[in-house]
Amino acid sequence: MVTVPVRNLTLEEFLKLPETKPASEYINGEIIQKAMPQGKHSTMQGEFVTTINSTVKPQKIARAFPELRCTFGGRSIVPDVAVFSWNRIPVDEQGNIANVFNTYPDWTIEILCHEQSTTRPTKNILHCLNHGTSLGWLIDPEEYNVFIYPSHQQTMFLENPEDILPVPNLVGNLHLTLGELFNWLKL
Amino acid sequence: MVTVPVRNLTLEEFLKLPETKPASEYINGEIIQKAMPQGKHSTMQGEFVTTINSTVKPQKIARAFPELRCTFGGRSIVPDVAVFSWNRIPVDEQGNIANVFNTYPDWTIEILCHEQSTTRPTKNILHCLNHGTSLGWLIDPEEYNVFIYPSHQQTMFLENPEDILPVPNLVGNLHLTLGELFNWLKL
Repeated sequence: MVTVPVRNLTLEEFLKLPETKPASEYINGEIIQKAMPQGKHSTMQGEFVTTINSTVKPQKIARAFPELRCTFGGRSIVPDVAVFSWNRIPVDEQGNIANVFNTYPDWTIEILCHEQSTTRPTKNILHCLNHGTSLGWLIDPEEYNVFIYPSHQQTMFLENPEDILPVPNLVGNLHLTLGELFNWLKL
Repeated sequence: MVTVPVRNLTLEEFLKLPETKPASEYINGEIIQKAMPQGKHSTMQGEFVTTINSTVKPQKIARAFPELRCTFGGRSIVPDVAVFSWNRIPVDEQGNIANVFNTYPDWTIEILCHEQSTTRPTKNILHCLNHGTSLGWLIDPEEYNVFIYPSHQQTMFLENPEDILPVPNLVGNLHLTLGELFNWLKL
């Protein structure tokens, strides 16, 4: 993670800069580039999008997006997976999904990269909760545990394979245990 | 932090082992030794105990203890600072403070050591909240930020010097900003 302290750059100015790879986030006036994702991170991100979308996309309930820039509450962040309820997905004049998402996801999922500090992703999850998101997950694929951040409620820590992962109401038919989640890492 | 996987050791057996330095904790059947504290950690721990006790000990409201073993809910943990309301401090037959605290602190404070993962201290804070503790703090003296864990409520993240740190009701007369807290690190 690279922090470039840039003075006097507003959110509007930041949003005009070219996108970087990995994506950069604008948090409290600072530009912070995300870590370069590795195998475990990419695997989990891909499986999440597939699993969530196969459960809730056909009925037009919700949709999961990997690496989607979400700008709201004075920050511009890029959750690893952002899930939006169907009626909150912005569309353009042609009825296509818009390019710019100036709103919070309903469910935000962050996946730790190897040896990454949990502070940045946790901060971003709390920013989401403070602006309307109903649930955040922080997944550690090295340590096989998940912090669950429900809106207005106490944080939960899950580390047993049989623990059932709480999901937002809008994807209530998604049933997933911690063991099933980390089985995604197996080839 | 050293994790020694010991099979079939019960909490009772763990408590009979000699104490280590730094202290070891018993969490989900595992024995985990705390990190060797360094200058910033020790400074903050000492200042906390002094500040809290000068505010609430004279009126016999509450008392702060550094490195106190607290055993409850199937675990034995050693918060960096454990604050107990006066009437919950265990005493022996002589009316002296007991050696064994088989209960949760009312307020638990963890101070990160250099490059330590936040998972262990956060887990311990959540264990406390799930067993009766009303507030947990996780302080990062390198990054100048504090995660606040109020019982049954959403986690908060504070990083601005003017932020006022929430304290438990029992020490309501303790007024402390984030800036004042990290000023303790100055000689």
